This record gives sequence, structure tokens and C-alpha cells, in this order.
Amino acid sequence: METTLDPSDWESLRRLGHRMVDDMLEYLRSVRDRPVWGPVPESVRRQLGMPLPDDPTTPEHVYADFREQVLPYALGNTHPRFWGLVCGTGTPFGMLAELLAGGLNANVFAGEHSAPYVEAQVIGWLERMLGIDETASGVLVSGGSVANLVGLTVARNVRSGIDLDGHGLANASQRPVLYGSTETHNSVAKAVQTLGLGRRALRLVPTNARYEIDVSALERAINDDRAAGYRPFCIVANAGTVNTGATDDMLALADIAAANDLWMHVDGAFGALVALSPKLRSRVAGLERADSVAFDLHKWLHMPYEVACVLVRDREAHRAAFSPSGAYLGRMPRGLMSGPYVPNEYGPELSRGFRALKVWMSLKEHGRRRFSDLIEQNVAQAAYLADRIAATPGLELAAPVPLNIVCFRATAPGVDVNELNREILMRLQERGIAVPTGTVLNGCFVIRVAITNHRSRREDFDALVDAVAALRAELVIPDPRRGSA
Amino acid sequence: METTLDPSDWESLRRLGHRMVDDMLEYLRSVRDRPVWGPVPESVRRQLGMPLPDDPTTPEHVYADFREQVLPYALGNTHPRFWGLVCGTGTPFGMLAELLAGGLNANVFAGEHSAPYVEAQVIGWLERMLGIDETASGVLVSGGSVANLVGLTVARNVRSGIDLDGHGLANASQRPVLYGSTETHNSVAKAVQTLGLGRRALRLVPTNARYEIDVSALERAINDDRAAGYRPFCIVANAGTVNTGATDDMLALADIAAANDLWMHVDGAFGALVALSPKLRSRVAGLERADSVAFDLHKWLHMPYEVACVLVRDREAHRAAFSPSGAYLGRMPRGLMSGPYVPNEYGPELSRGFRALKVWMSLKEHGRRRFSDLIEQNVAQAAYLADRIAATPGLELAAPVPLNIVCFRATAPGVDVNELNREILMRLQERGIAVPTGTVLNGCFVIRVAITNHRSRREDFDALVDAVAALRAELVIPDPRRGSA
Repeated sequence: METTLDPSDWESLRRLGHRMVDDMLEYLRSVRDRPVWGPVPESVRRQLGMPLPDDPTTPEHVYADFREQVLPYALGNTHPRFWGLVCGTGTPFGMLAELLAGGLNANVFAGEHSAPYVEAQVIGWLERMLGIDETASGVLVSGGSVANLVGLTVARNVRSGIDLDGHGLANASQRPVLYGSTETHNSVAKAVQTLGLGRRALRLVPTNARYEIDVSALERAINDDRAAGYRPFCIVANAGTVNTGATDDMLALADIAAANDLWMHVDGAFGALVALSPKLRSRVAGLERADSVAFDLHKWLHMPYEVACVLVRDREAHRAAFSPSGAYLGRMPRGLMSGPYVPNEYGPELSRGFRALKVWMSLKEHGRRRFSDLIEQNVAQAAYLADRIAATPGLELAAPVPLNIVCFRATAPGVDVNELNREILMRLQERGIAVPTGTVLNGCFVIRVAITNHRSRREDFDALVDAVAALRAELVIPDPRRGSA
Repeated sequence: METTLDPSDWESLRRLGHRMVDDMLEYLRSVRDRPVWGPVPESVRRQLGMPLPDDPTTPEHVYADFREQVLPYALGNTHPRFWGLVCGTGTPFGMLAELLAGGLNANVFAGEHSAPYVEAQVIGWLERMLGIDETASGVLVSGGSVANLVGLTVARNVRSGIDLDGHGLANASQRPVLYGSTETHNSVAKAVQTLGLGRRALRLVPTNARYEIDVSALERAINDDRAAGYRPFCIVANAGTVNTGATDDMLALADIAAANDLWMHVDGAFGALVALSPKLRSRVAGLERADSVAFDLHKWLHMPYEVACVLVRDREAHRAAFSPSGAYLGRMPRGLMSGPYVPNEYGPELSRGFRALKVWMSLKEHGRRRFSDLIEQNVAQAAYLADRIAATPGLELAAPVPLNIVCFRATAPGVDVNELNREILMRLQERGIAVPTGTVLNGCFVIRVAITNHRSRREDFDALVDAVAALRAELVIPDPRRGSA
């Protein structure tokens, strides 16, 4: 008798599946009633350090391990008062879509089956939602970092003078350089390293007081580099910087790119999505002129992790960058190896999961308009929070609030303000009240609230402001009757 | 009242979730009763080309769309007679793990929550399973292609003379070159392009008759390149080539790498997993001497797509290659931004999904030994199939069968043998009998059966041989009473 990984008892697995659905839906329905976050206890850490048994464990027992060791110590980004980093909230229906994708277990490398059609359809939907020319090529990838890597790979291949058929950059007659503001996301620096360009190839241009790239400084940098014998090849524009939500003047950048024969790549991880909103769309004017655009779907569209998209105007250049093929992938006129869309030729992966399914199901579930409404809602909440902070004694805004990110800090005379805010932030998290995270602006540590959360309500921001004010009071004028957190 | 993406009716979503669990488990339980594959009908393609509505659709209706447009036209890799490309089969419990991961929706960038501990635990398990030193660093990535990209990025950074702090490869005094056999997977060529090395940097070394790298030719190539002023920096060893399952002599390659100060990267997409089996482990002797190893978990371990792993012996070099950080990611002594494991510093992604959960749950469910048994079973099935083919008139083996891949073809005097086999293959697929795919060996098109399938039984290989023999008869001596497929 041959072995299989299928269950010996399908009926008990079915009952377990029902329990999982019930438990997870209840977990999500009741998330507001729980603390946002708490640390992993030492006893659980010990469990999560044990070796793998040689022998099987029943599915019920494995699920009990999950319920005890994993579920209670979540990151917290499903909670209405989680505003750390830039995380999406996920959705219950998105979770169910992951079940279906896990069951189908499609490898969406290419081929004639439904999944590549679904992926091509959602790429078209996303192009239209963002106002990008629908002749652009696109592919779903794991996240914004890989989306940036893909866009910058094509940019380098097309505009840097690299000798792709020979020895690549090692044959370069000029050293290629690219530009982005000092607020550019770390994934761009990571991509530049991966692409073999070296740290100095990325020219970080100063910003204005709104944290947008200084356009004149950019032009000077390009001219200086050209005069010094470098080869400028790309501008990275930010649609929504990670620190403050600033968006570069993309119309100006597109003009500069055109005048200098540079590629314009837009890192629009969350910010590009404001193009969905008729009310906010003007804030990303110029997006439609990009040569490539990277954006996440697991952030402001709340698809379950991981899924992002990269669109490239020059389809052929996009394909050429990722299409080294193999004999075992040969196309056939009929059968499985036919099919019109070959997504593996547009990104780093060959085997590819069916991440398109959750996108397809979630976009259908809500329709374009509800996503647009939610983005507007988060932007309005950021403005509300900014007003509350500005009106609260002892708190001050640390940066403009152009979109959905609010940076602020508590102040007090005669204390180390950076330490004060770090301590406030950690206590907010440790007490499970709310999860902002921090950043550094102009050398100062600030508390940073990134609102990409479909469960947040105004009352949650009131709770945040009240808690920060209370923690400030607790820390600035210590009350001897209370200990520290 | 504020908008949310949560359901208005949790109870009806719960009922829908139960239906999905029931339907998908039944789909998997009964998969053997259905054809392996069929094309997507024109009417469905039309549906999968429609624009996105502005307005919502009920979850029930979206699920009906899935049932009508997506599920019936699957790739087929859950079926016991799917042996195309190299695809895993997935498992029912793995599907349920995806449900849980989708509900938790963790961003496993780093931080103090359960998910990074789970990922660190499974990395340790995998190291021990493969016999790799547990001090090696590791990270889960989307697939073998990205795992290869990660390993080769570190190799290039450490051994190619690249000027990472300056202008990268554009400052190189010598042109870096790396080596792999002509059977090396296309993802290595893709990675070399992405890394900026150019097509000629990848030296393809001939193989012996067993499709293993010709070790003497490799040594000559290294010496010649060095004499010509190139800088050899890496050998890519194959543990299980995609065409025939050949494994290079990794002990010899490790010696050559050591003698020449080269990095040894092992592409062990599926082949590295034979290290789990005490019976087969000797076939990958030398694996433990690799500087980096890439392998998939969605292939021969049947985790749902996507998940692969890369291990790197030099932890610090690994981290240095992917750790450009940002102020908003600053570590804190307490709270969410503490935690011991920072996986985003070991791979291309910053936001990262909880792919570790399905690995953790699946490895626990089955334990190490059952995976080892299944790998042995597939290797034995390949030998069985090879014997059946060798014993069948009109069929011949096209390559040795060292592992789990069988390449063969039908022959007949006076016909175009390549066309004959292409037609046999397409009809096998179109009639839903079985799904091998094809490849080209020594200029000849051959049918290729890659057995990474926990549902296959010996009877399935009998069915394949019988069907191929029948199709050959049908095509070589056409029967005027039957049309083509």
C-alpha cells in the first residue's frame, strides 16, 4: 500500500475545518475587545524552540498548538488601533479566499488554466483603477520591495548602458546613477545593492519642508553627475513616503525624466492607491506618466499578505528582463503548455502561487468604490487626529499630514524628549492600548501613526490621544504611587 | 457611521466558510475521479475578461463565480496523474493552514510576535532535516528562483570583488564569472541578469552522459578564465536537475570551490530534499559543504504554493546583503519592535507573509519520517516507470533515471519522432488522462514525467504507459474511423 499525505479520516478533518472557520471569524469579529499587542511569554518561546518530531501529530493536536502558541501572540495588525509601520488589516473574506487558493494549489507560472486568466484580469482592473495605460504589462509579486526591484531592474536594463549580453555592469563605460529623495524607502537601497550598482549609485536628494523631493536640487544633481561622467538613468518618485506620507511632484519629475532620457519609477506602496479616489486623485498627478509603478495590495487594499503589483509601460523591456527560459518550459500549440499569459517572464519567480485569487475575490466583493471610500476615510481620520494633537497641550505635530500618516511627539521642558517619546510608545504597546511605531525626523524620535486600517473609528484616535496625554503626565510628573509599566 | 470591509452579516459568512471547507475537501478527496486537465472554455475566458464593477457583489455570488469560472479549470497538480514541470500536490491540512494564516494576516517583517519565532523554528528544523549546520542563517522565500537569487547575491557580494560601498560592478577591475552545467535551471540565468553580471558571466559547462557537470571541464574553464583575467567567484551545483533529476558530484565541486576560493551554491529545488531519507542521502553527499543551498517546500514537501527556503553558511554576509534599513524600522528594547529574529534582513522583502505557518503545521502533522517515506516512494515509482517503458515496444528511455524524473519517447520508423511525441503529449493532456510535460534532450523532444506527487500510485504509471502506447498506435497507424483529439 502506497503512502499519501491525504488524511485517513476526511470527516474529522472537515469538522476541524469548520472549527477553524468558526474560531477565526470569531477572532476577527471580536478583535476590538482584545489588547492590540502583547509580548510572547517565555514558556511559549520555549515551545517554539523545540525540535521536530520524526512521527506524525494529529491535525487536531497541531491546531491546538496553533491556538496556544501562535494565535494569542499576533502582531496585532487586524486590530482597529494598530497603526504601526504600514500594514493592512486583512479581511474575513480575504481569509476564505486563501483557503480556496490553498486547496487549488495552482502554480501560476503560465499555462492554459484559469489562474493566469484571473491574474491577467486583475492586472487590467488595477491598471484601470490607477489610471495607468492598459497596454502596460504587469505582474503580481510578493510585496512592494520586489515590485520596486522589478521596476528598477527594467530601468537599469534599458537606460543604464549595461551590457546584458556580455559582462553586464562590469563592462560599463560610465557608472550608472539613479535618484530619489532622502525619504526614499529602504527597499530601493536594497534593490540597488541587489542590482549590482553599489551604494553610491543611489543619489539621495534633499527634500523641502513638506518632505517632497527638492526638484531644483534634483536637476542640479543630474547635471553635476553628467558633467562628472556618470550616467544618470532613473528617478525614483515617492507617492506617499513611508515616514510622513509625502508625495513628490510627479509632474515635475516626469518632465525632468523626459528631458534627460531617464526612467521614472514610482514607489507608490500605499500612496499610489489614492488614484482610486476621485477626490484625492490629483495628489498623485503624474502617476500616469511613470515608466513603472510599484504598489502593494496587502496595505491599503487589505488583501491578506503577501501581494503587490508592478506595472511597466514598456511591455517588451519588462519581458526581456525576466524571460531567460528553459527547454522544459517550451510552449505548445495545445494542451497545458499553451495559454496566452506567461507571468513568470515578468518577474523573478518561475513557480508562482495563486495570489491573484484573493485579489480577484476581494475586488469583486467590495467593488472599486468601497475601497475608494475607505481610503478617503483613513485620510480624513489622519486629519482628525492631527487636529486633536494640535489642540492637546504637551503634544505637537512633527510633520505635515498630507495623507494618512501622522507624526507627532509629546514635549516637556527639561526632559530628554526622545526618551520620553520612546517610553510613551513602548508603554502604549505594552499595555495593549494602541500600536503606532516610531521614526526619526530631523534627528528627533517621533511617534508615527500610519492609518491603513479599515476597522479604525474616530473613537480609536480619541483613545490614542487620551492615552498619550496620560502617559506623558505619568512620565513627566512621576506619581510615586504608580510603578513603571 | 464609518465604513469597514468587515461583513455586515458574520453568520452568513460563517456558513459560506463551512461550505467552502466542505466543497474544497470534497474536491480534493474526489480528485482521482476527474480528468487531470482540460482547457478553459471560450465562454469562461470571456467572463475572465470583464471589467471590475464599481459596486459590491455578495460573498456568495463571488464564490459562485469561483465555482463556475476558476475551480473547474485548474492546472491539475492536485491530481495523482499530474507529473508536469516540477509541481507539488499540496495537502488538505496545508490548505487549512492557509486559512489560518490568512486570518492572522501577520506581517513577518520582524518584531516581537509569534510568527518570527515560528519561522526561526522551521528554519532550524529544515537545517537539521537536510544535515546543514544549524548555525547557518536561513529565510523562507516565495520559491526556488528567489532562493537562488538570494544565494547568488551573497556569493557575488562576498567573492566577486564588487565595490558595494561605491559603484558596484561598474567599479570592478576584473569581470566576475560563475559556473554551472548546461543543465542549470533557468532561474540561475535570470538571477545572473538581475545581479547585473550579464549573460556571458554565466559559464555553462558540459555534462557527462548522466547529465552531471563534467568536473574536468569545469576545472579547465576556471583555469582558462583566470588566465584570461576574469574573476571566477562561484560554482552552482545541481542537486536534481530539472530535465532529468541528475545531481552533480558535489564532493568534487566542494573541493574545487575550496581550492579556488569560490562560493558553492546548491540549487536543490527538489533534489536537496532526498537528504531527508537515510536510504537516499548519499546521493547528495557534499550538500553539507555548500556555502548556500536553495530548495522548495512547495514541490517535494507539498506545502501549498508559495514557499521555499535558502540557507547560507555565512550568516553575517547573508544579513549584509539585504539589510539596508530605515529609521521607521528602528529596534526598541521593549514592545513590538523588539524580538530576536529580523527575517527581512535576509531576503528581498520587507513586508512578509506568514508562509512559515503552513510549513510549521505540515511538518508537525506528518513528522520527518513520512516525508522521507514519500520521497523514497516517488523515487521507487520512477524506477518502476522506467522499467515499464524499457519493456514496452515502441517506447524508449531518453535519459538515465537517477531520481524521480523519467524522460522517454515513443519511436517509430519513418515518422517525425519529435512531432509524434509532441502530439502524444498534447493528446494525453487534452483527454485528461495524465499530465507529463516535455523537454528537449540532445536536440530531441521527449516526454518528461517528474514525480513529486503524494497521490500517485503504481496503477497511475501503468495507465500512463498504456495510454502512450495506445496513442502511439493511433498516430503511427492512423485509423480512418477515429478523428484527432
